[in-house]
Amino acid sequence: MVKQRIAIVGLGLIGGSLARRLVNAGCEVTAWNHNDRPYATAETDGITCMPTLAALADGRPDVLVLCNPLKAMPQILSALKPLIDQNVTTLTDVGSVKGMVRDQVKAVGLENCYVGAHPMAGNELSGWESSDPALYDDALWAITVDERTEYRRFLAVATMITDACANRLIVLDDATHDRCAALISHMPHVIATAMVNELVVNPNRNVAAALAAGSWRDMTRVALTDPDRTRAMVEEDAANVELLLRNMANRLTLMANVLHGVQPQGAGALQTAATQESDAKEMARFFEQGQPFRDYKTAIRQPDFMERCETVSLAIPAEGWQQMLLESARRGEHIIRFTDDHAVDVQIRSAV
Amino acid sequence: MVKQRIAIVGLGLIGGSLARRLVNAGCEVTAWNHNDRPYATAETDGITCMPTLAALADGRPDVLVLCNPLKAMPQILSALKPLIDQNVTTLTDVGSVKGMVRDQVKAVGLENCYVGAHPMAGNELSGWESSDPALYDDALWAITVDERTEYRRFLAVATMITDACANRLIVLDDATHDRCAALISHMPHVIATAMVNELVVNPNRNVAAALAAGSWRDMTRVALTDPDRTRAMVEEDAANVELLLRNMANRLTLMANVLHGVQPQGAGALQTAATQESDAKEMARFFEQGQPFRDYKTAIRQPDFMERCETVSLAIPAEGWQQMLLESARRGEHIIRFTDDHAVDVQIRSAV
Repeated sequence: MVKQRIAIVGLGLIGGSLARRLVNAGCEVTAWNHNDRPYATAETDGITCMPTLAALADGRPDVLVLCNPLKAMPQILSALKPLIDQNVTTLTDVGSVKGMVRDQVKAVGLENCYVGAHPMAGNELSGWESSDPALYDDALWAITVDERTEYRRFLAVATMITDACANRLIVLDDATHDRCAALISHMPHVIATAMVNELVVNPNRNVAAALAAGSWRDMTRVALTDPDRTRAMVEEDAANVELLLRNMANRLTLMANVLHGVQPQGAGALQTAATQESDAKEMARFFEQGQPFRDYKTAIRQPDFMERCETVSLAIPAEGWQQMLLESARRGEHIIRFTDDHAVDVQIRSAV
Repeated sequence: MVKQRIAIVGLGLIGGSLARRLVNAGCEVTAWNHNDRPYATAETDGITCMPTLAALADGRPDVLVLCNPLKAMPQILSALKPLIDQNVTTLTDVGSVKGMVRDQVKAVGLENCYVGAHPMAGNELSGWESSDPALYDDALWAITVDERTEYRRFLAVATMITDACANRLIVLDDATHDRCAALISHMPHVIATAMVNELVVNPNRNVAAALAAGSWRDMTRVALTDPDRTRAMVEEDAANVELLLRNMANRLTLMANVLHGVQPQGAGALQTAATQESDAKEMARFFEQGQPFRDYKTAIRQPDFMERCETVSLAIPAEGWQQMLLESARRGEHIIRFTDDHAVDVQIRSAV
């Protein structure tokens, strides 16, 4: 197999770790960073560092991966537009929101060569100094496509992930990606922040803080990160977070009403047997509803989970491949390798 | 100083660890367990094991600590009532709710010799086999009293904590304890459960579960524990949890409304400049409000935090000592030792 030629914009934690992993896999890797501080050690690691973005694009890489901060995206896309050979180079990124990035790509007219990507990799560190090819060990990537995405563009990014990075991937549309990111990350950040706010206004806050143990520590950890960054993240995905916060508020209010019902009632209270029965049912439902997720977590924590996952081959149709692969992701399947240009092996993971 | 004679009911994780720590401190420790499985190793550790609850009470210990499960409390209190010498023995417990236990103590008529206690110690294990005196290393206890609590009863339990266990303590009333426990533990358990429920009903639940990383894992960890135990815990503190859930629902709804405002408005939308400004203020307030807690966490995480804590001496008045010590706890002070029977040294911790 011919090794890919990959260009990386931004040698921070994510970009630097990816560049080093691709070099280790035998790819020809070039890179440009907004300053040349990482260049000396990056060159030692086998990464060819470029003095300008133009020089990077001129190398006509197979894939150019934008690993710059999201806030620099519009500026870098505008700069790249006249430099990139769109016929040769496929453009991708590693941003944590996908709809907004595609809109920015469209705004400069680079959508024909673009495929979105988001690797589930990272830690609390940042910068080239913290980069580590092992950051991507066993990582899952989301690739986002739309109905106009060319299959060969998708294949260029997907094989970089499966063959060079030895990672798994799922295929999504931008909306599904951003809705899921809101559910598992953006909405939880708001809730953790609201919990901290609730403590701060409590007259017994010092007593509460003194008594706080594991559950409080874990549930408020993400509220300790830079609130400006959290605010930006939430605003970038506002519609999805709004909907989830309303759903959560309804769930908490329902539970508050049920808890009101289980308290000893005053003499004049009209707590009928029917109300009591309905409250008891709601309470039971609340604590049973999440059982499929508990079962899923139990399953994936088994030491032999990976060995027990069945692998099946899926043929990829010429038309409608985007929807077909999205449905595979919804079933809980992960793409692990391409057996030829139109067939993938997917690992059937435990479903929720 | 005369070493205390302590009796322990229940040699599980909490009771067994406490018994072993008290033996190490030179106390005379007796114990009774609902079965005699731990007795052989407990005796080796220097704990005198009793065949019956009657034999344990007959030893006329200075302090009898109920470390049995909460659900066994009414039965054990009824059994103890005719056995215990109330003039000699002070009764305490380690339960995680305090108002309910005091009600049960009152129901059998043992309130004159009772002081509540709750050590902030524990882990995910259970049973004598998991017991470890180091479980209490650097632990903080809450002692709960009411206006009728005799000072000598408080002193018996408090000196067991400061002198024998080498732990810190704060003094609370039952209501303050249970409200704070609702804030830092019971309410968060409901929220974690609601988040898992929200994922389970989402059509993209498998995609979301695949993308889930640290924030989701930490914020839902407590929802993975036995839901029946969580339900019992929440029901035992229903009024406090109800209020906090309503507050949290209001905070989430407010944030949802603000996020609605920041989204691109349709052509006919009437988003006035005044509304935009008010939304921006609410958003800023939401992300700033919790800053005192972030600062508090930063302060207590400093490696030299303990050395920098100032220690001051407080005289304990004969009247109104309960309220005076509660106010000390509210300021963020922890009792570390009794310098005589009516004076304590408190460590001034960082305040929220």
